Amino acid sequence: MQVDLRFFDSLGSQPLGRLAELTMSELNGDPAVEIAGIASSQTAGAGALCYVEGPPKQASLVSSQAAACFVSRDGAGRLPKGVIALINARPRWAHGQAAQALFRLKEWTSCEGPEAALHETTRLAPGAVVCRGAVIGAGTVIGPNSVIGPGVQIGQHCRIGANVSIRNALIGNHVSVLSGGRIGESGFGVSDGPDGAEDVPQWGRVILQDHVLIGANSCVDRGALSDTVIGERTKIDNLCQIAHNVVLGRNVLMASFGGISGSVEVGDGTIMGGRVGIADHVVVGAGAKLAASAGIFRDIPAGEAWGGTPGRPLRQFLRETSWLQQQAMKGRSDKS
Amino acid sequence: MQVDLRFFDSLGSQPLGRLAELTMSELNGDPAVEIAGIASSQTAGAGALCYVEGPPKQASLVSSQAAACFVSRDGAGRLPKGVIALINARPRWAHGQAAQALFRLKEWTSCEGPEAALHETTRLAPGAVVCRGAVIGAGTVIGPNSVIGPGVQIGQHCRIGANVSIRNALIGNHVSVLSGGRIGESGFGVSDGPDGAEDVPQWGRVILQDHVLIGANSCVDRGALSDTVIGERTKIDNLCQIAHNVVLGRNVLMASFGGISGSVEVGDGTIMGGRVGIADHVVVGAGAKLAASAGIFRDIPAGEAWGGTPGRPLRQFLRETSWLQQQAMKGRSDKS
Amino acid sequence: MQVDLRFFDSLGSQPLGRLAELTMSELNGDPAVEIAGIASSQTAGAGALCYVEGPPKQASLVSSQAAACFVSRDGAGRLPKGVIALINARPRWAHGQAAQALFRLKEWTSCEGPEAALHETTRLAPGAVVCRGAVIGAGTVIGPNSVIGPGVQIGQHCRIGANVSIRNALIGNHVSVLSGGRIGESGFGVSDGPDGAEDVPQWGRVILQDHVLIGANSCVDRGALSDTVIGERTKIDNLCQIAHNVVLGRNVLMASFGGISGSVEVGDGTIMGGRVGIADHVVVGAGAKLAASAGIFRDIPAGEAWGGTPGRPLRQFLRETSWLQQQAMKGRSDKS
Repeated sequence: MQVDLRFFDSLGSQPLGRLAELTMSELNGDPAVEIAGIASSQTAGAGALCYVEGPPKQASLVSSQAAACFVSRDGAGRLPKGVIALINARPRWAHGQAAQALFRLKEWTSCEGPEAALHETTRLAPGAVVCRGAVIGAGTVIGPNSVIGPGVQIGQHCRIGANVSIRNALIGNHVSVLSGGRIGESGFGVSDGPDGAEDVPQWGRVILQDHVLIGANSCVDRGALSDTVIGERTKIDNLCQIAHNVVLGRNVLMASFGGISGSVEVGDGTIMGGRVGIADHVVVGAGAKLAASAGIFRDIPAGEAWGGTPGRPLRQFLRETSWLQQQAMKGRSDKS
Repeated sequence: MQVDLRFFDSLGSQPLGRLAELTMSELNGDPAVEIAGIASSQTAGAGALCYVEGPPKQASLVSSQAAACFVSRDGAGRLPKGVIALINARPRWAHGQAAQALFRLKEWTSCEGPEAALHETTRLAPGAVVCRGAVIGAGTVIGPNSVIGPGVQIGQHCRIGANVSIRNALIGNHVSVLSGGRIGESGFGVSDGPDGAEDVPQWGRVILQDHVLIGANSCVDRGALSDTVIGERTKIDNLCQIAHNVVLGRNVLMASFGGISGSVEVGDGTIMGGRVGIADHVVVGAGAKLAASAGIFRDIPAGEAWGGTPGRPLRQFLRETSWLQQQAMKGRSDKS
Repeated sequence: MQVDLRFFDSLGSQPLGRLAELTMSELNGDPAVEIAGIASSQTAGAGALCYVEGPPKQASLVSSQAAACFVSRDGAGRLPKGVIALINARPRWAHGQAAQALFRLKEWTSCEGPEAALHETTRLAPGAVVCRGAVIGAGTVIGPNSVIGPGVQIGQHCRIGANVSIRNALIGNHVSVLSGGRIGESGFGVSDGPDGAEDVPQWGRVILQDHVLIGANSCVDRGALSDTVIGERTKIDNLCQIAHNVVLGRNVLMASFGGISGSVEVGDGTIMGGRVGIADHVVVGAGAKLAASAGIFRDIPAGEAWGGTPGRPLRQFLRETSWLQQQAMKGRSDKS
C-alpha cells in the first residue's frame, strides 16, 4: 500500500532510531535506516514499516520486503531475515504513533494545493463545500450543504444528496449517495495504549465503483492499511454500516441496518435482508442469501441461504425454531 | 396516484410505441395511444401505465382502468379487457425506464418556479437552504444548515433541527424533525435490469401529520407509487428507518433502531421497543406491543404482545426461552 | 439539578397556583409559593418542582427538600412532610407542561447573548455555524457545515467532522466527533397527555470527557432531568445511540449499532460487540464483555461475558444454542 497523498500530507521520512524513541521501542537494527512508508504486515513492500500482533508465530508471516516491524518480544526472533524488529508490548499502538510521524490526514480545513476541478456541467447546490484538490466529473450534482473533502475524485453523472460528506474516496460514474451518507470517515480501530484506549489512525481509502447506491445516513469507512471497496451496481439501503477494509462484490443488495464488520469479503450478487450483521474477517461466497436479522460469525459458501444468530443454514435455523416451539408447547401440556 | 408536480417535472406524454421501443417491450395494442401517467397495478386510474410481476394470475388483478401494463409473456393474456400489454421479461425494470421518460425528479439544484413562500414569523437559521416552491408556515423554525427541497410544504409551529434534509414531503403543524433527520429520500427499490441491479425510481411522497416527532438521524423514505404516511402524534426515536409506502397510525411509539420495511401498515397506538424490525407488507393491528429486538415476519392481531425473531406471541417466546434454558442445563447435568 | 442557563432561558418563577391551573392539577398547599426550579423526584433540592409516577409507595421516596410534586391521588398522602402535592392523573405530562412555563430551550436561531468565544487557533471550516455563547478551545477544528449550538463548550484539540451538530453539551479536550454525529438532541420521552402522545421536554446536558470518540452518524441525547455522561477515552463506533441519562465509564468500547437505553450505567472498560442493545435502567459492571447482537435486559456483574437475546451468560447462551442444534437434528433423524 502507498499512502495516497491526495488525502494525506507526507511529513518526510524518519530514521528508525527516531521512531523507536518516539514509541519507546527496543530497536534490533540500524537506527539510521530511513522509513518513508507504512503498510500491513502481509502486504508490506520495500522499505515499509509494519506491525504484527497475536501469537509469536504470526511474525513469520510478515512480508520479507518490509524494512522494519513492530513486534512483541516473543515474536521478534521469528521475523523474516532482513526485517528489522522494533520490540514493543503494544505493536499496533506503536505503529499508529510512528505512522503519525510520517503522514498526516488532510484536515477538513486544510485547503492547500490546487483548486477543485469541476466540469462545466457539474452543478453545486447552495451551501455545498468542495475542498481543494477535489475533481468532479460532467453532469454530477452535489446537493445542498454537502461536503466534498480534499482530493476526493468523483466521476460523471453522480447524484450526491443533501448534507452528505465524502472524504478519502474515489468514486466512479453514475453513483448515488443519498442525503446524510458518510463516505470515508475513519474506521473504528482502537488500540490499548499506555494511557488507555487510543484511536488507531486509518490510512486507506473508499472506492465506490460505477452505479453504486449508498442510502441515506449510511456510512462507508475508509480502510486502515488497505481500501474499502464497493463493487459495481451494489446497492446499499439507508442506515447501513460498512467498516474498514471491507470488499463487497458487484450487484450485492443490502437492506436497512446492514452492518459489515472490518475486513469482510462478500461475493457478487449476495442478497441481505434487513439488519444483517457480519463479524470481522468473514468471507461470504457469491450469490449467498442472508435472511433478515441474521448474525453471521463464520464463512458462508457461495449460493447458500443462512439465517439466525449465530448464523446457520436457513433450513437448519427454521427447523430449530420450529422444533423448539413444538417441544416447549408439549412441555407445557405435560405439566398442565 | 397522481405524480405530484411540486416534486417532479412532467416531460409530457409519450406514445405507447415509443415506450415499447425504449424498454424493448412487445406491444399488444395501438402504438399511438398517449400515456401521461403512472401508477401501481391495483390503483391505476384512467390512462395510467402500470406493471405487474409475480405469478401470471397476478395480471388478472390489474386495475381495469389502466391504459397499459408491463407484464410477462405468461401473464399478458390475463390482463383485464382493454388494458394493453407491454410484454417484457422484466416488468418492474421496464416500468421504471418508461416512467423516467414521463417524469423527472426535481433536483436539489433545480430551482425553477416560484420562490419559497415563508410566513413573516418563519425563522431560518444560518446556512438553512430553502428551495423554490417550498411553503413554510407561521412560527416554524428551520435549523442551521438544514435543507428544504423544492415544493416541500411545512405547516405552522414546526421545529426542524440542524442538518436536516426534507424533500418530496407534506408536513403538518407542530411537527418536530430532530437534527440529521432524512425525510423523503428515495425508497430502496432495486430491479434486475439487463446490466445488473438497477435503482427503481420512486414517485411518491412522505406525509407527516400534526405533532409527529422524527428523531435524530432517522429516515422516512418517500413512497414508490403511493405515499408514506406517519399518523398524528406518532413519535419515532433516533436512528429509525421507515421504508416506502409504510402507513403508521396515530400515537404509535417506536424506540431507537426501529426498522419498518416497505408497505407495512401499523395500527394506532402500537408500541415498539428498541430495535424492532417488521418485514415488508406485514399488517400490525392497533394497540399491539412489540418487545425490544422483535423481528416480525407475519401479521399481528390488534392488542397482542409479540417478541423474538422470528416474532411470536410474547408469552410463547418467553416460554420457549425458559424451556430451552432448563433443558440445556439438564442436558449438561446428565452428561457430567 | 440546576437547569443550565447556557442552554435554556429562564422565564422567571411561577406561583404554584398558576402551575396547578395550567396543568389542571388539584393543589394541596399554598398557591402563593413561588417555584423557580425543576428536578427529578429523588434529586430535588430546595424549592424544586418534581413529579412521581408508578405505585403509590414511590411517593414516599421523593426528596424531602422538594417544594412540590406532581403525584397521583393515591400517592399524594405518601409524600414526605413539607412537600406540597399537585394531584394529577398524568404527573409526568403535568411536570413537562409546568417546566415549560419556567424554562425554554434556546432555539437554534436564538442568538441573543455574548458572541461565541473562539481561541485564535480554533479553525472553522466553510459553512460551519457557531451560535452565540459557545466557547471553543485552542487547536480545535470545526468541520464544514457543522453546527455548534448556543452556549456549547468545547475544549482544546478536538476534531469535529463535517455536518455534525452539537447542542446542550460540555465537551473536554482531544474529543473527536466524526461526520454526522448528533450530540445533545432531545432524549426520547413521551407522556400520555390529554390529547394523546406528548413529547416530554428534556432539560439536561451531554458531557463528553477527554479523548472520547463518537462515530459517524451516532447520537448522544441530552439528559431529561440529569446529564448524559461519556467517560474519558470511551470510544463509540458509527451509528450508535446513547439515550438520555446514560452514564458510560472510561475506556468503554462500543461497536456499530450499539444502543444504550435511558438511564443505563456501564462500568469502566466494558467492551461491546456490534449491535448490542441494553434496556433502560440496567447496570453493567466494569470490564463486562457483551457479545455482538446481545440484548441485555438485566444487570450484569463486573467482568462477566454475556450474549444472546434476552442476554444471558455467554457460556450458557452457547450451550443452549449448541444443545438446540443437536436436539433438533436428532428430532429430524428420529422421524426420517
